[in-house]
Amino acid sequence: MAASGRGTGDERFFAHSGSQSLDVLARLAGAEIRRPADGREVGPLTGVAALQAAGAEEVSFLDNRRYLPLLSNTGAGVVILGPAFAGQVPPGCAALVTPQPYLAWARIAALFHPRPAVAPGIHPTALVDDEAGIDPAAEIGPFAVVGSGARIGAGSVVMAHAVVGPGVVIGSDCRIGTHASVSHALVGDRVTLFPGVRIGQDGFGFALSETGFVSVPQLGRVILHDDVEVGANATIDRGSAQDTVIGAGSRLDNLVQIGHNVRLGRCCIVVAQAGISGSTELEDYVTIAAQAGLIGHIRIGRKARIGAQAGVMSDVDAGADVIGSPAMAFREFFRNVAALKRLARRPVAGGKAAGDHQGPDADG
Amino acid sequence: MAASGRGTGDERFFAHSGSQSLDVLARLAGAEIRRPADGREVGPLTGVAALQAAGAEEVSFLDNRRYLPLLSNTGAGVVILGPAFAGQVPPGCAALVTPQPYLAWARIAALFHPRPAVAPGIHPTALVDDEAGIDPAAEIGPFAVVGSGARIGAGSVVMAHAVVGPGVVIGSDCRIGTHASVSHALVGDRVTLFPGVRIGQDGFGFALSETGFVSVPQLGRVILHDDVEVGANATIDRGSAQDTVIGAGSRLDNLVQIGHNVRLGRCCIVVAQAGISGSTELEDYVTIAAQAGLIGHIRIGRKARIGAQAGVMSDVDAGADVIGSPAMAFREFFRNVAALKRLARRPVAGGKAAGDHQGPDADG
Amino acid sequence: MAASGRGTGDERFFAHSGSQSLDVLARLAGAEIRRPADGREVGPLTGVAALQAAGAEEVSFLDNRRYLPLLSNTGAGVVILGPAFAGQVPPGCAALVTPQPYLAWARIAALFHPRPAVAPGIHPTALVDDEAGIDPAAEIGPFAVVGSGARIGAGSVVMAHAVVGPGVVIGSDCRIGTHASVSHALVGDRVTLFPGVRIGQDGFGFALSETGFVSVPQLGRVILHDDVEVGANATIDRGSAQDTVIGAGSRLDNLVQIGHNVRLGRCCIVVAQAGISGSTELEDYVTIAAQAGLIGHIRIGRKARIGAQAGVMSDVDAGADVIGSPAMAFREFFRNVAALKRLARRPVAGGKAAGDHQGPDADG
Repeated sequence: MAASGRGTGDERFFAHSGSQSLDVLARLAGAEIRRPADGREVGPLTGVAALQAAGAEEVSFLDNRRYLPLLSNTGAGVVILGPAFAGQVPPGCAALVTPQPYLAWARIAALFHPRPAVAPGIHPTALVDDEAGIDPAAEIGPFAVVGSGARIGAGSVVMAHAVVGPGVVIGSDCRIGTHASVSHALVGDRVTLFPGVRIGQDGFGFALSETGFVSVPQLGRVILHDDVEVGANATIDRGSAQDTVIGAGSRLDNLVQIGHNVRLGRCCIVVAQAGISGSTELEDYVTIAAQAGLIGHIRIGRKARIGAQAGVMSDVDAGADVIGSPAMAFREFFRNVAALKRLARRPVAGGKAAGDHQGPDADG
Repeated sequence: MAASGRGTGDERFFAHSGSQSLDVLARLAGAEIRRPADGREVGPLTGVAALQAAGAEEVSFLDNRRYLPLLSNTGAGVVILGPAFAGQVPPGCAALVTPQPYLAWARIAALFHPRPAVAPGIHPTALVDDEAGIDPAAEIGPFAVVGSGARIGAGSVVMAHAVVGPGVVIGSDCRIGTHASVSHALVGDRVTLFPGVRIGQDGFGFALSETGFVSVPQLGRVILHDDVEVGANATIDRGSAQDTVIGAGSRLDNLVQIGHNVRLGRCCIVVAQAGISGSTELEDYVTIAAQAGLIGHIRIGRKARIGAQAGVMSDVDAGADVIGSPAMAFREFFRNVAALKRLARRPVAGGKAAGDHQGPDADG
Repeated sequence: MAASGRGTGDERFFAHSGSQSLDVLARLAGAEIRRPADGREVGPLTGVAALQAAGAEEVSFLDNRRYLPLLSNTGAGVVILGPAFAGQVPPGCAALVTPQPYLAWARIAALFHPRPAVAPGIHPTALVDDEAGIDPAAEIGPFAVVGSGARIGAGSVVMAHAVVGPGVVIGSDCRIGTHASVSHALVGDRVTLFPGVRIGQDGFGFALSETGFVSVPQLGRVILHDDVEVGANATIDRGSAQDTVIGAGSRLDNLVQIGHNVRLGRCCIVVAQAGISGSTELEDYVTIAAQAGLIGHIRIGRKARIGAQAGVMSDVDAGADVIGSPAMAFREFFRNVAALKRLARRPVAGGKAAGDHQGPDADG
């Protein structure tokens, strides 16, 4: 297969707004300009690209020390970076220096490649209930289904094949992704649901009777506050007797699972494949790294950070960093790792190393 | 955003059946009535709500000791709870006392909020093959696709955008959720598939040849017995040379993965994001907690319980409790955790604590 | 429910090509024939089945020592197996002996049960943009959506409800599964996406500003090279400033997560529920077992093998086997497990076993 074309801003997929001057970019980014050491004049800039691909009329950026070697060989006309690295740009390259290079990159890249505009209207193949309220400035895509009593706000887009259930309220400037389903939910403004997201289905609740499991009615809702994003194929169950709540500005990555009655505060981050069990609460600014799991009915304090693959079985204090399964303080976890390594290397009676008698443990 | 309205039984999303007397509720739940200590007469009850939200005409419940503090402040007219907590209801509050409060809650909540009725018929936008057999009492939703030779039983609902492949048999009173896909499968009665479930696609099987991987034809089926539930975006691959089988009454949570030829017995529970590799067998009443993983070709005995995030690499005895990766008995796992903690805190030669020489281990 | 019919090759689900002679099968499989010890003549063979279900006119196979007990009782007419087990077939049974029995099985099973043929044409309910280029030999299924500028190659099938975004290029002989969504992507030949796959959505990238998180434009693409397979409900985000690339022949299982800018080499294997964080690179022939997680910005060497549930936090050498969280060499991991077990069993001061003072650690 020929993966032809540029890897950044391929015109088949991304709109392009035209050239920009270095001064405009610097103002937008709140960055300081350092002109090329070789005295080269920096003309209009046409776009953005990665360090290893950018040309003399393009802007690139460096945000991770690991990629410093790429900086010295870049052909970029301008590089956005932090003060610590500003001295290392090649002589023909301008620098946009800022303590927040990633934020500056976000703003400059968005200037060159604006998001697709909303095309208000209801696609003729969409199925919108007569009792639904669709703002005239909303866009409803092909084969989308919007149920009775649902409301879709101005500037929002319900993409192809998405299903918005009866009574669901969606605010303004939202994106409801392809194949997403939303039921029993109230959604704020500027919320983005990526493709395949599942919002509002029954939580996992059942009681044991003499004849088997009996489903417990799940009578709560899902509340997604403003500016929430939910990654592809992630799942958020509705509450049982209360609501499941995702606080304003929180971002959930792909394949995340949120159980019923879970409550996230503002600006929490939940990375891919992590899961939060029923009725657990996160205060504001909590970060849950990839594949971590939290049991139900616990509380995670403000700004706590849960490490990747952690298994959290009890409350976590505000500001704490935990990792491991069961989760413990970062420091304790890595101390344990080191102690165990030292122990296992120590010779045991008879002069062998500790692990040489693996027996049946060796294959699990 | 205004998350207006009640968090339980919001009338935009849930049907409501009207008021009920305390006597009716007690009989339904098999619970004993304890009338309010202050002598208040308990009138008709209008609905259910959580302890912190319920009013004097509503029923609430307590099932977890952790929420006892909410009980003393509840405004609920009636609380369902176990005998141990019955003495702690506020003076103006009636109690429905039962050893199975969660089951009682399930029945009472379902009485107030019955499931939506089935609306028999085929939606005009659905695409049903002429050779499919749809019971007149089944409901086929918008844009649903039902293939040639498929059969859908009485009282079953194929929801919007679901795809039922050729030859698939679905029993009576099933719910095939929005955007679910089902192929190569035989499905019993009262089976619920939540939105985005994937049933019957090829398992992960391939052989290595000189020119790369060669797919091994996956020639089995998926058999879902009666009363099975499968959570949102969960995946169940069809068998390769045998069937993949989920036993009657088993419940799988969101984002669970079931490999080809896996066999679950009756009433197994598989919690969110757990995965079971090919050809592994679970006997009846096995519980797999969240994010646990089982390798292929092993057998898990009746009523065994696999802990969250466990990594099970060998057979597990009936009734055993295992956790950890590699999995071991609960008792052994927590003994190990405690022993390691003690070891790591012990001073090593030179007087430092064991973990102080982290070196390169510290970051992994 | 009556799970009637055969578990292998159920005619409701699988096409059947007719009978074959033992000689034809042996040639196809590159296997040596050993005729039945009892002198029975082997007639035409009608199909394939598992050892425990196969009859005298059917072919079965043995690929795993664990199932040897089934071999002695099989009623199969022919069994495919390796030289080590060839002496153990029952007297009335022929053997097809080959060092690669699983590959032989793949070829023979595919001969009896060929994949469904492509039915070229665009279903009347599909929505194909006038500016899309659909090869006349491609098949576009019910309710599929193909955007402007997209191209679909000969022999490819876009299944029911799949959505192919604007500009997406799909090669020849691909299968785009039910409910899959593909955007911002270039797809090679013979690529299979299983149902519910999400390709090309925005990666998880945002910068912190004074007012909350700011999304970083994701301006790369997804490149799927020839012969790639992606399992049900798996997610592959598009690159941010570069491409996300899956090398030729690589196979991803269900519910796998691939972050932005990740690059996989040729013939990598990523098993169910594993996740790879942004910008990590895998060289050729890397295997990632189920539920493993890799942090971002690391490099995994050629033919390295990452164990199930491993948490990989740093580069892995070519050919290395690692497991554990944090990941370490297999040998070291199991040595640690054994050493810890020995430590925990050792009596501590006072004569108790080490784990008897569990205290609050016992429940996590």
